[in-house]
Amino acid sequence: MSSSISPLAPKTYAEMPQIRGVRMATAAAGIKYKNRTDVLLMAFDEPASVAGVFTKSKCPSAPVDFCRQNLAHGVARGVVVNSGNANAFTGVKGRAATELTAKSAAAALGCGENEIYLASTGVIGEPLDATKFSGVLDQMATDATGDFWFEAAKAIMTTDTYPKVATRSAVIDGVTVTINGIAKGAGMIAPDMATMLSFVVTDADIAPVALQGLLSEGVEPSFNSITVDSDTSTSDTLMLLATGAASADGQAKVERADDARLGDFRAALNDLLKDLALQVVRDGEGARKMVEITVKGAENDLAAKKIALSIANSPLVKTAVAGEDANWGRIVMAVGKSGEMADRDRLAIWFGDVRVAVNGERDPAYSEEATTAVMEREDIPVTVDIGLGSGTATVWTCDLTKEYVAINGDYRS
Amino acid sequence: MSSSISPLAPKTYAEMPQIRGVRMATAAAGIKYKNRTDVLLMAFDEPASVAGVFTKSKCPSAPVDFCRQNLAHGVARGVVVNSGNANAFTGVKGRAATELTAKSAAAALGCGENEIYLASTGVIGEPLDATKFSGVLDQMATDATGDFWFEAAKAIMTTDTYPKVATRSAVIDGVTVTINGIAKGAGMIAPDMATMLSFVVTDADIAPVALQGLLSEGVEPSFNSITVDSDTSTSDTLMLLATGAASADGQAKVERADDARLGDFRAALNDLLKDLALQVVRDGEGARKMVEITVKGAENDLAAKKIALSIANSPLVKTAVAGEDANWGRIVMAVGKSGEMADRDRLAIWFGDVRVAVNGERDPAYSEEATTAVMEREDIPVTVDIGLGSGTATVWTCDLTKEYVAINGDYRS
Repeated sequence: MSSSISPLAPKTYAEMPQIRGVRMATAAAGIKYKNRTDVLLMAFDEPASVAGVFTKSKCPSAPVDFCRQNLAHGVARGVVVNSGNANAFTGVKGRAATELTAKSAAAALGCGENEIYLASTGVIGEPLDATKFSGVLDQMATDATGDFWFEAAKAIMTTDTYPKVATRSAVIDGVTVTINGIAKGAGMIAPDMATMLSFVVTDADIAPVALQGLLSEGVEPSFNSITVDSDTSTSDTLMLLATGAASADGQAKVERADDARLGDFRAALNDLLKDLALQVVRDGEGARKMVEITVKGAENDLAAKKIALSIANSPLVKTAVAGEDANWGRIVMAVGKSGEMADRDRLAIWFGDVRVAVNGERDPAYSEEATTAVMEREDIPVTVDIGLGSGTATVWTCDLTKEYVAINGDYRS
Repeated sequence: MSSSISPLAPKTYAEMPQIRGVRMATAAAGIKYKNRTDVLLMAFDEPASVAGVFTKSKCPSAPVDFCRQNLAHGVARGVVVNSGNANAFTGVKGRAATELTAKSAAAALGCGENEIYLASTGVIGEPLDATKFSGVLDQMATDATGDFWFEAAKAIMTTDTYPKVATRSAVIDGVTVTINGIAKGAGMIAPDMATMLSFVVTDADIAPVALQGLLSEGVEPSFNSITVDSDTSTSDTLMLLATGAASADGQAKVERADDARLGDFRAALNDLLKDLALQVVRDGEGARKMVEITVKGAENDLAAKKIALSIANSPLVKTAVAGEDANWGRIVMAVGKSGEMADRDRLAIWFGDVRVAVNGERDPAYSEEATTAVMEREDIPVTVDIGLGSGTATVWTCDLTKEYVAINGDYRS
């Protein structure tokens, strides 16, 4: 939809290594547009352990319902992702479409339908013609290769202006394992989670329950700490899959998330999740600036996060950032409206290293020039000290520009 | 700040009658700009009963703190309102400024400082030089007249593009009384309450406690049911004052809000509050369209209001309205993210009279043309039936346009 790449895009993309045990292919199934790549198949040659976290929307899409149901089974052989149509609010037809897609994918991969996972992104409320998948999945299963990460990231883009990829390595039991992740998302991004699809795959050998523990913990300071527009999608899906191929190198299977052997893996995974989440914010629709908001001194960590999100979701804060206006009065407003404990006379606020307010009023040493210099940057750190307790949180958002309005004022047509 | 009047402005303004017992004057005190009317004095010749509701912000302005403190006293002789500076987040200096202003006003009116009420609107965090008031208040108290309502409404404007006035009459004890109200507010508007100052005066004879009951009840379906941008000001103030002059016509003083004699007055007051509140939304910064969102069939009324506000505050819903795009998928998204009980398969959605979705999917009789015709209107009614219970609520919002971003991206400078 957007013609130009976000100015906040990474200067270089990660070189994505192959992950043993997973192959991918993309195709143009004609979901919404003709001759446009709109389907991704991830094929697992052996059953992979699988974990997932999904939108907290009370009106989730049919694929989200489908995945939640299969997750109890804990094993994946295939993931089918399409763009162009979210298969959300499509009622009985929506459920039929997920069943048909899973059936086609299971046939193509020679596995059970409960080993298939689905994700759809695009327009809400339009019936998805799943017969279009049956024509392409067989060939995709045959053609799939392991060196396809970057193309996979491109295939799931909607209003994204660049593909989002990240890779890390970690050591478990002396064995080096790899973690690769891709993500899409640019608008309808808010915690719980972003409008966002993300698929992370490792060759580590980790049981489903341990994998789920790692993912549920890792999503909080990453995807659940970003917001573009406070709007939560019906389709948010983040999956973590482990092929277990590293067992061939002698890695003994990890059964529990609190296993001490996971220390390095956990750190690498969390770092990758944060990397992908920040790439999503940096591609926020119409974004020209990235804002990192740190709240400290709140009553507790939860209160700190609520205050930080109140600031991050404030249209007045976000438009001020767009206008390079160090309008810290709007930060005070957003702290005040959060509903969390705050005392005007203890608040302190920084833009970058410049303290603009302290003890309930403007910093006596306030310098308009120094503050403006911070606001002119591409990356703007904002720190708020509530001065009451030891709760802290950091969230990330982007500015609100005329381009956001332009992109979203004419999306469906 | 805005050069042109909102296209949603009323075609005509109410003729504002005089209210016995209150006189008003405005002046240019040079708070922020020179030669610009920026102070309003309301003078009550006899002590008036007073009630107030204020922002729920945890970081309220100094004038809000000051008013809350005086409200226990229940009697007003003067109200001083200024634009240009909100006297918010100004710490010790802020408190000193309210004290100095009250002292000057009390001297000008010959009353106690606890009979003075203050409201300030404008930039947050800049110290307010209250010595500027002392130079003008004496003269204002002398010059004040009863026919000054329209000018008063103009004097308190900030980013408003038109003055907001309303008047009603009602009968108590066979005596006809008048209610006049003025309001300002255009951005930083969200329930609890809007960035909004409003002053309502009647000549009825009603005790403070009864007045407070009426106001606290009346604010819910009016000012607490509107939102422009989900941002809550530190300064929101709505005051209701009763001069009691109607006692001269034989109206016996009303002591309790549940007094049956208040039936007609309550209806007229609520109607006036709704009128003023809708005028605020219709002047929403950059607004081109007004949206009335009714949610029915929710678990209860509170849930209905939470869902309605989730829709009304969604940037994606508001940009779709700006683009005249009947994107009801975003309504589903907003229902889903509200956190309230909802069942996709029971939802129904209307734009105007056109049902676009029913039973969890697009209405089989859906007509793009009919829906688009609704979206092209200036006033767009949206109805959502959750299909679960009997909770209902109606809220009002406006669209989110590039002009909103323009107005707020360069406000402080």
